[in-house]
Amino acid sequence: MIARDALPPAEPVASRSSRVVVVGGGFAGIEVARELGRAGLPVLLLDRQNHHLFQPLLYQVATAALSATDVAEPIRKILRKYESVQVLLGEVAEIDTTGRTLALSDGSVLGYDYLVLATGATHSYFGHQEWAERAPGLKTIPDARRIRARALLAFERAERTVDPGEQRRLMTIAIVGGGPTGVELAGSLAELSRMTLARDFRSARPEMARIMLIEAGPRILPAFSEKASDYARRRLERLGVEVFIGKPVENIDDDTITFAGRTVPVGLVLWAAGVAASPLCGQLGAEMDRAGRVLVDETMRVKGTPNVFVLGDAAKFIGDDGQQLPGLAQVAKQQGQHLGRTLARHLREGAPLEPFEYHSRGNTAIVGRHSAVFEQGRFKLTGWIAWISWAIIHVYLLVGFQHRLLVSMQWLWRYLTYERGARVITDESFDVRLGQKPSRQDVSTPNTPR
Amino acid sequence: MIARDALPPAEPVASRSSRVVVVGGGFAGIEVARELGRAGLPVLLLDRQNHHLFQPLLYQVATAALSATDVAEPIRKILRKYESVQVLLGEVAEIDTTGRTLALSDGSVLGYDYLVLATGATHSYFGHQEWAERAPGLKTIPDARRIRARALLAFERAERTVDPGEQRRLMTIAIVGGGPTGVELAGSLAELSRMTLARDFRSARPEMARIMLIEAGPRILPAFSEKASDYARRRLERLGVEVFIGKPVENIDDDTITFAGRTVPVGLVLWAAGVAASPLCGQLGAEMDRAGRVLVDETMRVKGTPNVFVLGDAAKFIGDDGQQLPGLAQVAKQQGQHLGRTLARHLREGAPLEPFEYHSRGNTAIVGRHSAVFEQGRFKLTGWIAWISWAIIHVYLLVGFQHRLLVSMQWLWRYLTYERGARVITDESFDVRLGQKPSRQDVSTPNTPR
Repeated sequence: MIARDALPPAEPVASRSSRVVVVGGGFAGIEVARELGRAGLPVLLLDRQNHHLFQPLLYQVATAALSATDVAEPIRKILRKYESVQVLLGEVAEIDTTGRTLALSDGSVLGYDYLVLATGATHSYFGHQEWAERAPGLKTIPDARRIRARALLAFERAERTVDPGEQRRLMTIAIVGGGPTGVELAGSLAELSRMTLARDFRSARPEMARIMLIEAGPRILPAFSEKASDYARRRLERLGVEVFIGKPVENIDDDTITFAGRTVPVGLVLWAAGVAASPLCGQLGAEMDRAGRVLVDETMRVKGTPNVFVLGDAAKFIGDDGQQLPGLAQVAKQQGQHLGRTLARHLREGAPLEPFEYHSRGNTAIVGRHSAVFEQGRFKLTGWIAWISWAIIHVYLLVGFQHRLLVSMQWLWRYLTYERGARVITDESFDVRLGQKPSRQDVSTPNTPR
Repeated sequence: MIARDALPPAEPVASRSSRVVVVGGGFAGIEVARELGRAGLPVLLLDRQNHHLFQPLLYQVATAALSATDVAEPIRKILRKYESVQVLLGEVAEIDTTGRTLALSDGSVLGYDYLVLATGATHSYFGHQEWAERAPGLKTIPDARRIRARALLAFERAERTVDPGEQRRLMTIAIVGGGPTGVELAGSLAELSRMTLARDFRSARPEMARIMLIEAGPRILPAFSEKASDYARRRLERLGVEVFIGKPVENIDDDTITFAGRTVPVGLVLWAAGVAASPLCGQLGAEMDRAGRVLVDETMRVKGTPNVFVLGDAAKFIGDDGQQLPGLAQVAKQQGQHLGRTLARHLREGAPLEPFEYHSRGNTAIVGRHSAVFEQGRFKLTGWIAWISWAIIHVYLLVGFQHRLLVSMQWLWRYLTYERGARVITDESFDVRLGQKPSRQDVSTPNTPR
């Protein structure tokens, strides 16, 4: 931990023109910029994307329930009303903490007085980088569109083949990792195949799709109570998902997955198992955990570089209870708000930075229609009420009012009809779409063979 | 013209198992399959995409007003309830009219008794294929996303540069072709820059964006009356669009467009000038016009191959007045309905094919907020009422009920707020996004220079 007085003394007048640069427009970065903007202090927010992404609903884009634009909002629109905030599209290539500059990937260089890194997390394949292409993870809009295209294509290919074994393989989906994302993907894909797609095919039978959720640890949803985890498992099984626990994945090939010594032919593998902090923070040379998260003090400062802050999924923040804070949107958001406010007071009045305290608003995961788990301390909820609460909370947290309305309407529509509005394959190239294993006898039709 | 009795005699019982193959799931193909499905006759619909696209609203996807999934619907969902209809994702590589087979691009082969080609149109660059990459056209969802990404990126780049000339270039958009698509793109881009984006930037001033609509012929909207075309021009000019008429484009380079002897630096060029029938129909060896449209008789049959039909944008159909029918969704839709019905009667009862007659439901183009033109015969409408009628008709024609609702809501929201819900850049690679012309001084910020 760094003593608070290690921070460079801030002189209110001089610091008015201090340059704060925030890297990353996720839940943490947006809040830092917003709070500084509210205080009228100049701040520059850099992101590689033009949009803020509402990641908690991204699995619904991957499973054809929502459109990508429903869960994304232009960063500059969110921060529009704060005149002192500038937003730039750009990728940071190098950080020079001595010279206090950032080099962008296009060669331009930016100076900073205070640097806030809120660069989030990416997937970790635990040393098996070759699995990345075979088992896509879910962090970005292109990720979600890729998963959607692959899942829908697997069914399209199953409809084209007359080989029952190949049809079974194509309609087998394995999800690796039993955390909230894995559970949400498994439940949503089971519903997609059993309810939405079931009526649309002639030769393939999507309702027979095999959905496997494979978890290496002793139970799914390890961040929840055992009761919630049991509940989620039972609900998933009722939806037809096969849940495997204590089964680490040993190999992923193009057409198979191997776990616990068995090799199963699969049409699609999704990765929801490991996360790693965005690699940029590694350049700080600071202490990191195995997942690349940078150890920060109670004000989110990096040891040894008191004008650099790391927060959100990229940071390792130890709470009052000695536990590391989890990688949740609400943690990132609270950290961003706190840092923005305390930094604004520091810059304007020279006030010392206040330590951050996390207030959990509860932990939630959705299992399927009518079933979710919600836990906050000793308050635990499962089933229909948890599901409704989840829906209300997530719609409420959506950034734009238009999105709230559109997403609510789509949910209501899906709830009443089992339809999904975004079943459009646009992202894989045509060759990929049609697969590499056709044969002259490969096409089935309802007609009498000629 | 082919005598009706040239058609192979249909025997009601035998023909029940006749295989009708429809290629293309656009407005024409969908209707043929639907009518045959309604009659319980077996039909196979092939398309390269899994979705039917509501092309008349595609320009709204390109200008960030709607999401791609709002204007697309899975083909197999549309045809779900007709048990005798099968839908397959596939691309036809070769047509053998003698052997009555189709070879798909994956090598599989399909036989047919009746072939319906409804493969639509693509862009024509009038022999300048090198312009295709520099001036994207608008026919598919990837086209629309590419245009949206490029337009939004041009403004992002303008925000990053400090060179006023470069900023002006980046915010100059040229649209080639003054038909309905060109007019709609110009009006919508003018509103996007002047109303939606204007408030979001600090260094760039999107409201100063220069939108040019360049038409080679003597007036824009040549398919409408002169009065409508004058009206559209005045409205566009009031929105700040520069309309050039009688100015054929001479060259398109990476950063410039040349027309009427002047070369103007541009940030984005869009192509709305020429269409050509999809090249597949060329394989029929039938009589075609210069745009590759296949000449068909009054029952949409191709001369010399009486079991092959071409309709929609791929066909050259001469109406009763001796005029060729225009490439409109309503023409394709009516042709599809007609062919499906008459073919069903022919297959079931051996009835002769009935000639097609087109009933225009009016011609419409949108210019901007509160302004459109609508003409049906001597009935002509411009302004606010035409605009409202356009909106109601287009929402009514949208395939799915959910889409109608969502699109209406988004229109209402945009109408009240000037917001656009789909301002998300996801389709261009990162390098493309940031451009190739950075410099160390390239980044402007609101802060005091260090």
